Amino acid sequence: SRARGIHTVTMIPGDGIGPEISSAVMKIFEAAKAPIQWEERNVTAIQGPGGKWMIPPDAKESMDQSKIGLKGPLKTPIAAGHPSMNLLLRKTFDLYANVRPCVSIEGYKTPYTDVDLVTIRENTEGEYSGIEHVIVDGVVQSIKLITEDASRRIAEYAFEYARNNQRSSVTAVHKANIMRMSDGLFLRKCREVAETYKDIKFTEMYLDTVCLNMVQDPTQFDVLVMPNLYGDILSDLCAGLIGGLGVTPSGNIGANGVAIFESVHGTAPDIAGLDMANPTALLLSAVMMLRHMGLHEYGKKIETACFDTIRDKKVLTKDLGGNSKCSEFTADICRRVVDMD
Amino acid sequence: SRARGIHTVTMIPGDGIGPEISSAVMKIFEAAKAPIQWEERNVTAIQGPGGKWMIPPDAKESMDQSKIGLKGPLKTPIAAGHPSMNLLLRKTFDLYANVRPCVSIEGYKTPYTDVDLVTIRENTEGEYSGIEHVIVDGVVQSIKLITEDASRRIAEYAFEYARNNQRSSVTAVHKANIMRMSDGLFLRKCREVAETYKDIKFTEMYLDTVCLNMVQDPTQFDVLVMPNLYGDILSDLCAGLIGGLGVTPSGNIGANGVAIFESVHGTAPDIAGLDMANPTALLLSAVMMLRHMGLHEYGKKIETACFDTIRDKKVLTKDLGGNSKCSEFTADICRRVVDMD
Ligand SMILES: CC(C)[C@H](C(=O)O)[C@@H](O)C(=O)O
Ligand SMILES: CC(C)[C@H](C(=O)O)[C@@H](O)C(=O)O
Repeated sequence: SRARGIHTVTMIPGDGIGPEISSAVMKIFEAAKAPIQWEERNVTAIQGPGGKWMIPPDAKESMDQSKIGLKGPLKTPIAAGHPSMNLLLRKTFDLYANVRPCVSIEGYKTPYTDVDLVTIRENTEGEYSGIEHVIVDGVVQSIKLITEDASRRIAEYAFEYARNNQRSSVTAVHKANIMRMSDGLFLRKCREVAETYKDIKFTEMYLDTVCLNMVQDPTQFDVLVMPNLYGDILSDLCAGLIGGLGVTPSGNIGANGVAIFESVHGTAPDIAGLDMANPTALLLSAVMMLRHMGLHEYGKKIETACFDTIRDKKVLTKDLGGNSKCSEFTADICRRVVDMD
Repeated sequence: SRARGIHTVTMIPGDGIGPEISSAVMKIFEAAKAPIQWEERNVTAIQGPGGKWMIPPDAKESMDQSKIGLKGPLKTPIAAGHPSMNLLLRKTFDLYANVRPCVSIEGYKTPYTDVDLVTIRENTEGEYSGIEHVIVDGVVQSIKLITEDASRRIAEYAFEYARNNQRSSVTAVHKANIMRMSDGLFLRKCREVAETYKDIKFTEMYLDTVCLNMVQDPTQFDVLVMPNLYGDILSDLCAGLIGGLGVTPSGNIGANGVAIFESVHGTAPDIAGLDMANPTALLLSAVMMLRHMGLHEYGKKIETACFDTIRDKKVLTKDLGGNSKCSEFTADICRRVVDMD
């Protein structure tokens, strides 16, 4: 079974604080004796024949073999015509579902408690089609592309996710009152798929209404599924409710088990190399990864240790309200992981 | 001057609780001796020649004369092909700026305090163009249309608004990292206009980042300007921060002083006619209207009375946490308004 033996994972440490937080995660995995072998790769894009930007062949090959990646933050490319690295990775490996669980962290105070929801974002089309035109001088159009196949695929993913994770409801988020054809198609596919998952409650809600209800009472939501841009917005909003991108995991899921898990915060160049970074988001993404690979016990152990360290409040990085170093925070989690054995 | 004499305002009471809350507003205006004469009109759309939906001629004429409307909630039309009434009104009178001040209300508890921001939404184009196509079976596109003229116009409105309302900064909200041409054009116009308002600080922020920062600390924002859909989302999100659509005013502003002020909550058919509705959102919209008309003293008086009633907590409608009737809440505000003289 997939859960036995040693598994290779492509590690993309990333830029800025990326190397520090990746090394923290690897240390904690080692302490937990997680059966993972890391293959480190750099994904800074290169220009292929015809000037097309692509990720370096050795990174592509590693991912093609391992099927699983863990990725730190990447700096935004500044070369003209250079694509966002995040978009390039999603595209290269057809990672069609972006999954972000948002769960309140005990001991980390925000205005909200008991948040426990998951945003599932269509990751390949919609407003991110990249198709734009100048019609006449001063008049521009961008095309939002919605297809039946991608809509059905993400709806199915959301309902499967709900079922496999003991969740009871899926809410489709849309503006089909305005974009009647495109969001209308998306919504229709969600409704169709819902018909085949009678064990999961299905509701639909306008994006604006979701945003309003979300800040008033996020506990009313469970699994949310939505087109690309809406997911970009809602996943960040929800991250804000539980403490921000520094504590929020993320997974990009493709077909046949291919997936890249990542922290979605920035590279924080101001504190890079100073042993001040908070590895929580990458660590919790790595926990998602372990679950995705069927390595649930390791996932549980590491997650518990991380949450215990945060709840305990004695060894916290600065952004979490403490004054410990990244290495101290990491060591505290390692100690707990070892103690659990 | 505009501030003298009697002014005619087109009153569109609307559906459901619309008549009750409009009559509450009119009572309070009478108590305040506000120099307003109301012309009540129904705007339920009719089909003109060729089947085109339009607002009834007598409502159109009233608005053309008065230039100022106050509008309660309208029920969503269900006839096929029937446009949203809100969109039809925005279009008919070219109400290009949707303005929603979000200010924390003393005594009405939410997780946030000291919120004091204004969302300014481009109200005529963008994702609301209504242009959609089926490309082939199962592939649909919606067109987001951004023009130089509309972008400049809304940017100018935002900076003028900031200047005239003693606000110090304007933030342009965008996704120009993804929609490089359309949001890029919008952003460029904001930057250009910013150049001519050196007294106002200008910043730019991604929509997802705004959402995240907004729920973490809304007090960092002042005036925000953005394309249509982003405004739809952010204005509802911000309303949620201060207590919801029941307490949030809204104004749709066109050229040459034309404007319609409205409560943006629903028609609440379940409590319609039961003297239970909360007129605050419509009343605060009417206060915005008074300011727009240069009738600042009346606006201040009514606003103060309304906030005093809420802060006092003795006479509140059910949704505000009390158990008074709409008429009692209204009478309490009237009493305060009269006492101020
Ligand atoms: C970096 C950017 C291209 C990206 C997006 O807009 O999708 C980011 O906001 C995200 O959510 O992963
Ligand atoms: C009713 C609907 C068409 C409208 C919109 O989407 O603009 C509403 O949400 C609003 O904000 O006024």
